[in-house]
Amino acid sequence: MSTTTQTTDRPTGTDARTGDLRVGIVGAGLMGADHVKRITERVSGAVVAAIIEPDAGRAAAAAANAPGAQAFTRIEDAIAAGAVDAVLIATPGQFHEPVLLPALAAGLPILCEKPLTPDSTSSWRVLEAEQQLDRPHIQVGFMRRFDAEYQQLRALVESGEAGELLMLRGVHRNAVVPDTYTQTMLITDSVVHEFDVLPWVAGSTVASVEVKYPRRNRLSPDHLREPILVIIELANGVLVDVEMNVSVQFGYQVATEAVFAESIARIGQPSGLQQWKDGRFSVADHTSFVTRFAAAYDEQVQRWVDAVRLGTLVDGPNAWDGYKVALACEAGVTALNTDGPVPVVVPERPAFYA
Amino acid sequence: MSTTTQTTDRPTGTDARTGDLRVGIVGAGLMGADHVKRITERVSGAVVAAIIEPDAGRAAAAAANAPGAQAFTRIEDAIAAGAVDAVLIATPGQFHEPVLLPALAAGLPILCEKPLTPDSTSSWRVLEAEQQLDRPHIQVGFMRRFDAEYQQLRALVESGEAGELLMLRGVHRNAVVPDTYTQTMLITDSVVHEFDVLPWVAGSTVASVEVKYPRRNRLSPDHLREPILVIIELANGVLVDVEMNVSVQFGYQVATEAVFAESIARIGQPSGLQQWKDGRFSVADHTSFVTRFAAAYDEQVQRWVDAVRLGTLVDGPNAWDGYKVALACEAGVTALNTDGPVPVVVPERPAFYA
Amino acid sequence: MSTTTQTTDRPTGTDARTGDLRVGIVGAGLMGADHVKRITERVSGAVVAAIIEPDAGRAAAAAANAPGAQAFTRIEDAIAAGAVDAVLIATPGQFHEPVLLPALAAGLPILCEKPLTPDSTSSWRVLEAEQQLDRPHIQVGFMRRFDAEYQQLRALVESGEAGELLMLRGVHRNAVVPDTYTQTMLITDSVVHEFDVLPWVAGSTVASVEVKYPRRNRLSPDHLREPILVIIELANGVLVDVEMNVSVQFGYQVATEAVFAESIARIGQPSGLQQWKDGRFSVADHTSFVTRFAAAYDEQVQRWVDAVRLGTLVDGPNAWDGYKVALACEAGVTALNTDGPVPVVVPERPAFYA
Amino acid sequence: MSTTTQTTDRPTGTDARTGDLRVGIVGAGLMGADHVKRITERVSGAVVAAIIEPDAGRAAAAAANAPGAQAFTRIEDAIAAGAVDAVLIATPGQFHEPVLLPALAAGLPILCEKPLTPDSTSSWRVLEAEQQLDRPHIQVGFMRRFDAEYQQLRALVESGEAGELLMLRGVHRNAVVPDTYTQTMLITDSVVHEFDVLPWVAGSTVASVEVKYPRRNRLSPDHLREPILVIIELANGVLVDVEMNVSVQFGYQVATEAVFAESIARIGQPSGLQQWKDGRFSVADHTSFVTRFAAAYDEQVQRWVDAVRLGTLVDGPNAWDGYKVALACEAGVTALNTDGPVPVVVPERPAFYA
Repeated sequence: MSTTTQTTDRPTGTDARTGDLRVGIVGAGLMGADHVKRITERVSGAVVAAIIEPDAGRAAAAAANAPGAQAFTRIEDAIAAGAVDAVLIATPGQFHEPVLLPALAAGLPILCEKPLTPDSTSSWRVLEAEQQLDRPHIQVGFMRRFDAEYQQLRALVESGEAGELLMLRGVHRNAVVPDTYTQTMLITDSVVHEFDVLPWVAGSTVASVEVKYPRRNRLSPDHLREPILVIIELANGVLVDVEMNVSVQFGYQVATEAVFAESIARIGQPSGLQQWKDGRFSVADHTSFVTRFAAAYDEQVQRWVDAVRLGTLVDGPNAWDGYKVALACEAGVTALNTDGPVPVVVPERPAFYA
Repeated sequence: MSTTTQTTDRPTGTDARTGDLRVGIVGAGLMGADHVKRITERVSGAVVAAIIEPDAGRAAAAAANAPGAQAFTRIEDAIAAGAVDAVLIATPGQFHEPVLLPALAAGLPILCEKPLTPDSTSSWRVLEAEQQLDRPHIQVGFMRRFDAEYQQLRALVESGEAGELLMLRGVHRNAVVPDTYTQTMLITDSVVHEFDVLPWVAGSTVASVEVKYPRRNRLSPDHLREPILVIIELANGVLVDVEMNVSVQFGYQVATEAVFAESIARIGQPSGLQQWKDGRFSVADHTSFVTRFAAAYDEQVQRWVDAVRLGTLVDGPNAWDGYKVALACEAGVTALNTDGPVPVVVPERPAFYA
Repeated sequence: MSTTTQTTDRPTGTDARTGDLRVGIVGAGLMGADHVKRITERVSGAVVAAIIEPDAGRAAAAAANAPGAQAFTRIEDAIAAGAVDAVLIATPGQFHEPVLLPALAAGLPILCEKPLTPDSTSSWRVLEAEQQLDRPHIQVGFMRRFDAEYQQLRALVESGEAGELLMLRGVHRNAVVPDTYTQTMLITDSVVHEFDVLPWVAGSTVASVEVKYPRRNRLSPDHLREPILVIIELANGVLVDVEMNVSVQFGYQVATEAVFAESIARIGQPSGLQQWKDGRFSVADHTSFVTRFAAAYDEQVQRWVDAVRLGTLVDGPNAWDGYKVALACEAGVTALNTDGPVPVVVPERPAFYA
Repeated sequence: MSTTTQTTDRPTGTDARTGDLRVGIVGAGLMGADHVKRITERVSGAVVAAIIEPDAGRAAAAAANAPGAQAFTRIEDAIAAGAVDAVLIATPGQFHEPVLLPALAAGLPILCEKPLTPDSTSSWRVLEAEQQLDRPHIQVGFMRRFDAEYQQLRALVESGEAGELLMLRGVHRNAVVPDTYTQTMLITDSVVHEFDVLPWVAGSTVASVEVKYPRRNRLSPDHLREPILVIIELANGVLVDVEMNVSVQFGYQVATEAVFAESIARIGQPSGLQQWKDGRFSVADHTSFVTRFAAAYDEQVQRWVDAVRLGTLVDGPNAWDGYKVALACEAGVTALNTDGPVPVVVPERPAFYA
């Protein structure tokens, strides 16, 4: 940690005086503001050194939680000022590429909120830019990999003690979504998480995507036809079926049941204070991803900060993972209007990402 | 119940002297022997008056639990002897029709273990024979309808308090199956229960059946390719996906999660004595349908006996329900080797079964 | 079961014509009426042959569920008429002795609702009367012994696989009680069950009883000071603490946690259909002993009927058990107004009850 | 957080150059080393600036996790060197007072692991020394107050929505203890936590302590007579019974059931990945306080660091809380060898701690 005597052997990419990683947060919306608070209050070894946000009001609001942080409207300016050691991108997906490319050009480590970019073509351009560097610099914010229960489930798969993994059966339920949420976002905003985390659990990749429609929920916004059942075949034969449901009214739930040759495992079940009242035994469940994955977000950022300070730069899903998810999302969007499975063809992995 | 003074106004179809229903059990294998014990020891208002079984050894073994029961090798003889008021058929499915037809001809009430018959053509013949009588005489042994939790789930659907039903997500897991269990039996012996009980819960009928194959369980018998994922569309739009799994090693589990517009409900979860030991908190789960559905079997037979003694004859799934399941099974068997959904076409229901 | 050919070797004490046990129900209040329905509708091998009840209205109401049952106002008349093979006593406790003594004198098997009698002196008189017979004829209605989870817990103690039993920690919670419920009844009507079942689970007897007072529940009837914490020492050193709580408002709960040398076990936890709604995950819990112990009541009566028909007469707690509970209740009532433990001195068990 | 522009208005008691709180860890045993790691790796806004430990080997081992930290053998030297802004004391309790007094004299904020000191007389001396300062500087390490479920339970009490709190029923179970663990430590090392957290939950203080002995666990070390049942009366009438059990073999469990006028609440139940295997449904439970309270330890230290940096100095139990627990422990130790309740007399709270 920071001490007077450390200035000469400080990790590359940290403040010479404090030893803390100077992070630039790009985008000060809901997600960005949350990361500002996280880094300032809960993450060790990092400070928010800059907030890069064109909207002055948002920037000021976020800066209130980051004393001393500089304000920029463009990433290029923050880089030119030498103000940041690393970049955390929290803008909407369509604005990722214009930040990723200059940050890569400057050789900065990046934690990029999902998706890497909205489509596989632009993601591929990002991969090409990254491959100009000595090693991967981008980590993608699929925070479920940092959730303790997903980690336990993956460890169970790897241990082999439950036998070979055969199926994964998932649910992803939101109480409600805003009117701005579109049919396509069922895939690109929500199922996108399953496309990353479930193959990661299973040790494989997505081979095809299919969408089935049950009876529509009349409480959904008029323009949505959901819930949907998404059936995903993995390259290793594991079959996944995920219920994607964004109008379930009662709360927020992400759960998975894994079917092994000799055992069943289940994650994402309710826990915490139990109460008997009015004839029922009950437990409060989550109502938002904010509480459901609070610890995972903290862990994700802490581990990324640690990795950057140690010089490994990435500790989590990388840009190649982000690219594969972009491919799966494209198939998923096609599957919304196609009968039967839509194949996902993943090119050979560049050696750079080995 | 039986008393001296009741002989003159006893229910039609009971022993004149005791008031008890004289049941003839057809088939004294595992299932038949179990019913003999059930009626003798736990069901009120009925006696096992006859055991109809060609295998003398089996017959004798079962009779040991039914003092006073007469032995017959053919149903026709039991009928001719006037030995029985009602018939419970517990032979394998391919032997049902030859028992059903003479029993119907004799006007006897029948509780027939599932399936009604192995295919829809023979089931239709049975329906035609039954329609010669004044009203339905056949109840089919889909005992899940008598399980307390399935009943609660159905009541929740009917009450509307959870909102409209949208999906049903089921599991049906057996520890192991004998070598005599074939690929087709995945449908006709196991999924057959889902074909009856889930539409009953949902208030609809099966519209199509599709089968997906996950990675095969290497612990399955060599000739089986399973588990399978069965996707069932109901006529009212409810989508069902059922994991059918007969080599799960760990125990026996039948569970369903129902997705409503405003709520989720789940049945079939473990309960009973909880134990902390060796670093784990645990509950013993079932290892066989025998314990999982013990109460449902008892309730089924008690209610059938009550219905027969009251003269309503049937209190549960009838032959028409059995016929619809036969149609769904045929589609399911086709689906084992077909890509995509296989439709189920149900003819108009005869007024007789209204 | 009943058949024509059995009349000559029928069990002693059953109807010569039907083979069914002719039970006389004494008392047609809530509990008695429930037993009438149980025997008529769900218990195999028995009929309600007589209802013994001085209140004509009650008697008629109960008889509606027992076709053919005769009505008597006094047990002596039912006995004189030869109308019953066995007696089930469901009157309030203070009326038990006047029924028990003539029934014993007539040599009839008896299932007597708890308590055997309201105090140990009268219970002792009943024991003396019973000892005039060849063997015990009285079973006492401590139905918890027939609850599947209590049985599992006892089996776990006996198996030794969890190590030696050290403590039992219980809860006994009622939603509300009527105004007629007195402070003394906390012991004699409610804790009475713990005095029977917990020593039975632990394989020991009550050695002392102590009562502690927490803060009073203001929702209790004015004349009650409760909940109470009852601390029971068993003769084998096992320490028991039971929360007795009759105004818990939310429902009905009976649960026990057993502390073993190497393990913890817990019974009485909620189960059944699980529901997510309005931000909570919940399970409906019981609101009355009627549903909580429904299966135990059925099992108790079925097994008693079976025992009587087999000639073993008793299968469950006997009069000696009832006497020991009467002793514990007397100590418990004293403990309501005493600091520290009140000893329970149990005389040597008569060989008759060995 | 630390930035170039903050040096002039940095919080009192932080490094002028980094803005980070320079913490001196006193004691580099198991607990101290754990805090070194915590502050270095997971706590924001603090650095381990000094390790104060006479044992050179231990000091070196701990320092490996705190780059740049200075080593001292005595607290006085660290203070004299101006090396620390705040002190975290993690030595055994008997060594607390000699560190607390000089640290208070130097006006340093202190986080002191429990107990404050081993007895109420020495604790009182510490309180007197602290009262020489302008306001409380000592926080005591009762970390359970930072556990999410204890916080939820307390919030439920305060909200009144469950009705008035009447009883608390607790368990505190360790798998095993080392041979150095004495009978007295059942109170001073283990129940000590209940003496702090349960009155905090209940909004009251300990009025008396009583100990009951169940059958002894033969697997306990020979010199221990346990488990014990500790009965605690709170000043507001709430009755507490806690099972204290340090040889339960199976794992680590801390749980509480709260009895309210209209509801029951329970905390400390198992959660996480659920597994079906070998005929059982199970969840891994904790085996040590290290995992059970990992988040609470982190939260405790983060909030203390935040409080010191904000200038409020204390955010959690203070020295007065520590003193009251010392009084309760003394009564508890007496109760180990006394029949009936041992009163706890708490003097009037000094206005300083209002």
